[in-house]
Amino acid sequence: MQLWYYEDYEDGVKLGLAAKEVLFRDKSDFQTVDVIETEAYGRMLLLDGLVMTTDKDEFVYHELISHVPALNHKKPERVVVIGGGDGGTVRELLKHPEIKEIVLCEIDGMVVEVCEKYFPEIAKGIRDPRVKLNIGDGIAYMAEHEANSLDLVVVDSTDPIGPGEGLFSGAFYNSVAKALKSDGLMVCQSEGLWHPPAVLQRIHKNVSAGFAHVYPYIASIPTYPKGTWSWTMASKNAIDVKKFDKARLKKIEATNLKYLNEDLMTGVFALPNFFKAKLKF
Amino acid sequence: MQLWYYEDYEDGVKLGLAAKEVLFRDKSDFQTVDVIETEAYGRMLLLDGLVMTTDKDEFVYHELISHVPALNHKKPERVVVIGGGDGGTVRELLKHPEIKEIVLCEIDGMVVEVCEKYFPEIAKGIRDPRVKLNIGDGIAYMAEHEANSLDLVVVDSTDPIGPGEGLFSGAFYNSVAKALKSDGLMVCQSEGLWHPPAVLQRIHKNVSAGFAHVYPYIASIPTYPKGTWSWTMASKNAIDVKKFDKARLKKIEATNLKYLNEDLMTGVFALPNFFKAKLKF
Repeated sequence: MQLWYYEDYEDGVKLGLAAKEVLFRDKSDFQTVDVIETEAYGRMLLLDGLVMTTDKDEFVYHELISHVPALNHKKPERVVVIGGGDGGTVRELLKHPEIKEIVLCEIDGMVVEVCEKYFPEIAKGIRDPRVKLNIGDGIAYMAEHEANSLDLVVVDSTDPIGPGEGLFSGAFYNSVAKALKSDGLMVCQSEGLWHPPAVLQRIHKNVSAGFAHVYPYIASIPTYPKGTWSWTMASKNAIDVKKFDKARLKKIEATNLKYLNEDLMTGVFALPNFFKAKLKF
Repeated sequence: MQLWYYEDYEDGVKLGLAAKEVLFRDKSDFQTVDVIETEAYGRMLLLDGLVMTTDKDEFVYHELISHVPALNHKKPERVVVIGGGDGGTVRELLKHPEIKEIVLCEIDGMVVEVCEKYFPEIAKGIRDPRVKLNIGDGIAYMAEHEANSLDLVVVDSTDPIGPGEGLFSGAFYNSVAKALKSDGLMVCQSEGLWHPPAVLQRIHKNVSAGFAHVYPYIASIPTYPKGTWSWTMASKNAIDVKKFDKARLKKIEATNLKYLNEDLMTGVFALPNFFKAKLKF
């Protein structure tokens, strides 16, 4: 017997992954949570039936969402991660000795529990003394946050449907901007390179409402829709992404980065024409 | 009724594409040839049941395999395309006024006929006066070619199984190297970013046997396995990929490139660490 998991992208495209075993199935207060063992990618976390992360390719997402903004900030000390309950983003951020504190604000405690049990290599940073785990609503957390106090806010959300939807609104990005210092950076996952223009434009427009400068970037993730994902870094004052901290990158690379390197730190910001055209609003 | 086409990557991963209609099915002397109308990507060409090209994303493959080498050559005049019977590579190469002659050497006449009928936008360059269509074996053609006479050889092959296999051998790359002038460039499609190390290493090793300098590069193609593809440019003498011809790119961009631009002409050569590690032999 061969089980197959299919993610239906609802535009006539599906990804099929052969499954060895279902390890966990439950419903939290917010979403369904499943863990399956796949043939190709090891263990895979699904929220509301959609692929969130897998053992084999999680490194791309987590390296990209953390090191790109961290190395574009001169001295990131106070960091907030919204979402990111699997712990992968925190694990990567902890490689930066400059970071003194990370508040991990995940709405769904079940995601943290499940990832600590089934994805120990991804979740291993969650209990680090520099991490403060806050199970709660990221929107409320940012709205109430002390102004002008953070260096980096990483929005490691699900898709803009379900519990993650509010994390893509203009109001949310405005509260993030308010909580950041003047040289602070925000980064969010911003859906796929091949997503419909309306989805991408909405994110781009809402981020732009909160931040004067936006820097989308892309990388290859085979288990995400259409295989290429995007993130958007944003700042109040202009930054030059070519001037990231190369010396600090060298130290981070010594921790065995599997994706990022000096060339890619700027290479990921080179965007195809069709994608740039879709972002225009 | 909803028909689905599945490409099984044989490692526990499948791509599923909803199909509206089967437009063509036959078997040539070399392979099966199918054309189906898909929901997501328009018309799609399959050879031996594998996705070769689609209306909606063909621009990536064809821009990447043609403009990257053409703009890295000072004055490409004499060009040979091996494979490439759909015509997309020729269509893009014809945008370079420097190119005086393109020999299109495709082994399977049925591919050319089918593409001229079902993919007129892709195949439209095949009957250009600068193109010489040669239905025949690319391996023999290159082996018998006048030495030191070509500026550019584009190996637009299928996968290294079936009729395309010989186009990945060291002997073939050696014959290409011999036919090229000292400043000539070869480029080949070199499978996917996430392919097994053995597949990638074999190509990289064989290209390196014919050419002292190899320059792999990558781009996003959602209908190819795992969504990110690679090509390898190769030369006898070292070149600097940062020194491509920007003035000529500007003119080519005016023909409405959908993927490539100045940033990506070097950005595509920025490779993830895990991929570089796989190429080592």
